[in-house]
Amino acid sequence: MSTLPGQVSIREVALRDGLQIEAPIPLSAKLELLAAIAATGVREVEVTSFVSPTKVPALADAAELAAELWRYPELEFSALVASPGGAARAVAAGLKSLEYVVCASDTFSTANVGRPTAQAVAAISDIAGIAHDAGASVEVIIATAWDCPFDGPTAPGRVTDIAATASALGVDRLAIADTIGTATPRRVTDLIAAVVPLIGDIPLGAHFHNTRGAGLACAYAAIQAGITRLDASAGGLGGCPFAPGATGNISTEDLVYLLGDCGIETGIDLDAAIAAAGVASSVVGHTLPSALLAAGDRKRD
Amino acid sequence: MSTLPGQVSIREVALRDGLQIEAPIPLSAKLELLAAIAATGVREVEVTSFVSPTKVPALADAAELAAELWRYPELEFSALVASPGGAARAVAAGLKSLEYVVCASDTFSTANVGRPTAQAVAAISDIAGIAHDAGASVEVIIATAWDCPFDGPTAPGRVTDIAATASALGVDRLAIADTIGTATPRRVTDLIAAVVPLIGDIPLGAHFHNTRGAGLACAYAAIQAGITRLDASAGGLGGCPFAPGATGNISTEDLVYLLGDCGIETGIDLDAAIAAAGVASSVVGHTLPSALLAAGDRKRD
Repeated sequence: MSTLPGQVSIREVALRDGLQIEAPIPLSAKLELLAAIAATGVREVEVTSFVSPTKVPALADAAELAAELWRYPELEFSALVASPGGAARAVAAGLKSLEYVVCASDTFSTANVGRPTAQAVAAISDIAGIAHDAGASVEVIIATAWDCPFDGPTAPGRVTDIAATASALGVDRLAIADTIGTATPRRVTDLIAAVVPLIGDIPLGAHFHNTRGAGLACAYAAIQAGITRLDASAGGLGGCPFAPGATGNISTEDLVYLLGDCGIETGIDLDAAIAAAGVASSVVGHTLPSALLAAGDRKRD
Repeated sequence: MSTLPGQVSIREVALRDGLQIEAPIPLSAKLELLAAIAATGVREVEVTSFVSPTKVPALADAAELAAELWRYPELEFSALVASPGGAARAVAAGLKSLEYVVCASDTFSTANVGRPTAQAVAAISDIAGIAHDAGASVEVIIATAWDCPFDGPTAPGRVTDIAATASALGVDRLAIADTIGTATPRRVTDLIAAVVPLIGDIPLGAHFHNTRGAGLACAYAAIQAGITRLDASAGGLGGCPFAPGATGNISTEDLVYLLGDCGIETGIDLDAAIAAAGVASSVVGHTLPSALLAAGDRKRD
């Protein structure tokens, strides 16, 4: 049996990945959700994206939200960017941690950001330069790392090429993302084993969706393979545009429950995480797929 | 990394564990669901229980349903029993495979069958005798194997004691069940490692619920620990009476997807399993928590 780590770091992505396909909600509602998230003890929060407000209207208030983040000096906020222009806006808004998504599948990349993978890779250098000049860090997130909804399975070599290139270009962190929620544990383990030898000391995170029910199984497999950085979303907020009605991100509170019960520290209080999931459900006005939000902790009165 | 098996056997439990807390449905609806299940390629089907019709009105038609099973000579049908009397009724109805549940937690055992664990264990011998005299096999399912909703965590020694005793009494199969859906991968691995050395060549299965989202992660951990027999329910049919509104059994189709994508054969056709989940939803008249039923397979047109 593999050895489990004593600690795993969870990045809370409800405010960005969770909200991005929802109908826009007021800034005040986002601040209410942020307050609930901050109360959980989580340290890293993906808070918004600096992308086209026409393409992602739900996050059009990125600069306004960024202006409120000084209230939480204990948190590390990150924002997603899709271009050097977005990176410039993000650092101008005070963000100290950027995420740049590179889709490993050409068709998805073109559909998502209007250019194939190679052109997206070519922008890494500029974006890293903008981040570093501003004293910010940058993470490259490799999307559609296992499967593309258009092109089918992603050849692992496409992912390892991006990882090696990004690593050589001096990015600060890397992550691999199961954008459409189709990965399963064996392929998770295999891809991590292929990427890790290529990236030196650069931290590698993983981002899973629960679209086909295997999100937590993949997260656990990733941990068994040595990953200690995982994304998750309060309440499982965040759908999948390629599978209407299906679930999206893995739920923070479900992941915290699983890890805690396995003896792995996250620094996140489970009751507070369940409360944050309730706030997430409230601000978007619909139920969420979180298991813990429905079932509660295993402790009974 | 551990070695994965090439094949895992799934027992379909929608007709028993899935339906038992639903409002009763007509026998014709059960036969419709059974036909859909049979079309998936599954080999083992837990079809009903021979227990008090007052306690479980949804399965009061056990003998009538049993009388229809000759239509599926390719399937191995099992039925749950809670007493020697139930075992006698089951074999009289023609069942060739019985499941006898022993709750590892005294409080749950008393709430469930009116007697503490030791008295339930004491009945194993009689039930095995009734089964074997009729040419039937008997499986002891150890319920609340990880946690009890009343007593909290179950001491592993209570589970290993039952497993060792049942094994010595000549039962044909054993299973450990996460009755309330609170197990997580590390405890799954640990308990399997404790049970396996005590039971010789007796096959050990596992039964997981997805109540806290970790069902498939537990199933995969069980497989990594050497288990090749798992229960699952079409559509995830089956709630948890201790967590109203929460999900219950792991979904057959979600498990088939995960295993298939990991290169593990189940003999079950995924499209047919998704269709059976749709029939399960239809016969009970409400949505089910299955991920695949909402999201579909990863193959895109």
